[in-house]
Amino acid sequence: MALSKNTIKYVKSLHQKKFRQKYNNFIVEGDKIVRELLSQTAFEIEGLYALPEWLIENEKNIHLPSTQIHSCSPTDLGRISTLKTPNQVLLIVHIPTESHSTDKINTSLSLYLDDIRDPGNMGTIIRIADWFGISQVFYSSTSVEWTNPKVIQSTMGSFLRVAIQEIELASLHDQSPALPIYGAVLAGSSIHDLSGSHTGIIVIGNESRGISPDNLALLSHRITIPKAPSGGAESLNAAVATGIICASLTR
Amino acid sequence: MALSKNTIKYVKSLHQKKFRQKYNNFIVEGDKIVRELLSQTAFEIEGLYALPEWLIENEKNIHLPSTQIHSCSPTDLGRISTLKTPNQVLLIVHIPTESHSTDKINTSLSLYLDDIRDPGNMGTIIRIADWFGISQVFYSSTSVEWTNPKVIQSTMGSFLRVAIQEIELASLHDQSPALPIYGAVLAGSSIHDLSGSHTGIIVIGNESRGISPDNLALLSHRITIPKAPSGGAESLNAAVATGIICASLTR
Repeated sequence: MALSKNTIKYVKSLHQKKFRQKYNNFIVEGDKIVRELLSQTAFEIEGLYALPEWLIENEKNIHLPSTQIHSCSPTDLGRISTLKTPNQVLLIVHIPTESHSTDKINTSLSLYLDDIRDPGNMGTIIRIADWFGISQVFYSSTSVEWTNPKVIQSTMGSFLRVAIQEIELASLHDQSPALPIYGAVLAGSSIHDLSGSHTGIIVIGNESRGISPDNLALLSHRITIPKAPSGGAESLNAAVATGIICASLTR
Repeated sequence: MALSKNTIKYVKSLHQKKFRQKYNNFIVEGDKIVRELLSQTAFEIEGLYALPEWLIENEKNIHLPSTQIHSCSPTDLGRISTLKTPNQVLLIVHIPTESHSTDKINTSLSLYLDDIRDPGNMGTIIRIADWFGISQVFYSSTSVEWTNPKVIQSTMGSFLRVAIQEIELASLHDQSPALPIYGAVLAGSSIHDLSGSHTGIIVIGNESRGISPDNLALLSHRITIPKAPSGGAESLNAAVATGIICASLTR
């Protein structure tokens, strides 16, 4: 059955931040992650849009009211998809109310994303957090928001397991003034001297400008990923730097 | 002056691998990297396409025959650009003849990219190599080729300083049978036990399938980036894994 013009218009509107905020919903695409979402209860589902063959194959795992299940042609799926090459299935998911607690910041490592603009970087960083058992990723209001389809796509499902919350770094610092705050800068102490730090916030700065002056002032530890004497690159990609810092701190 | 239809057609053809191979040229875009290319001699330049104001501003640094300099309108630059938001300048550069020596593999660390398909990953990995002073990046014929515009863009200029060459891993192994070959697998020894290995080849596998069976058989060291006991992600992004391994091995 063909999707109505209004349905197509509605799903497509969720490609944009403005309408995700208005409707409080976001889009998740792909067989594996959709199956994972259908088997959990933390995220509430609003609608499932899939090719008929996918619906038949996954029938046993779909426990949604029939009004929420939409069988689509490949053409219609292409129309509502955020991907160049659409997958077999698209899910509309409610954005959970931000009730994440920040209490855990005192007993574990967390990440703070200061003005991260590239959705691929944010998604990859959430995936890194998930690998290293870092259960909280905070971000500044100037960063891309985590419900952006490209962020979701590049988390590879890790957004299900990591609490992600927009908050200012100053608020976290006010809440726990004694908590170490690490930030990568050009002339800090080597990350290799910091192994085994199991509490604190790791601040990752903007892709071009690094950590903002306000947040630099909040750092308790200025750290650096040592560059080879013969090395030529001016910097590392933000997600790569995050991976190296996390590997070193959780060592 | 407007660019001719044929010129536009020619530059646009270089967006595709087929025509890059046919004409033996590739595209580089962006003010900073173009200025860097204009001040060196290792890469030969075929043509410069820029907005009039950029040409005026950079006049002193342009030492090209006038037939190679093309002043373009923003519209024409938009037509020939590989970027969604075109920069002020685009350069066509000859692909250097692959005369890179593999002699240095015995005295330094190098990277081998086994079927890396994502251009952003390859570019980011070349940038990582440049940071850690790894002067050679080899890649399989199944990988994306390094002259792809998205690879060039994500190297952030590092392609100028790192020798990049297509070759099979077996050829490198035949040439130096005793050379250590490291590869990240799911159940290898921890990278933290390998610090300070300053020669050898680090193999990075395909984004979904990892290292190919043929190349797995050539590994002398199977290594693993330890995942937290509470970690949920199934894997790390290929470029992130490369960064962590390089930071650990060059420590």
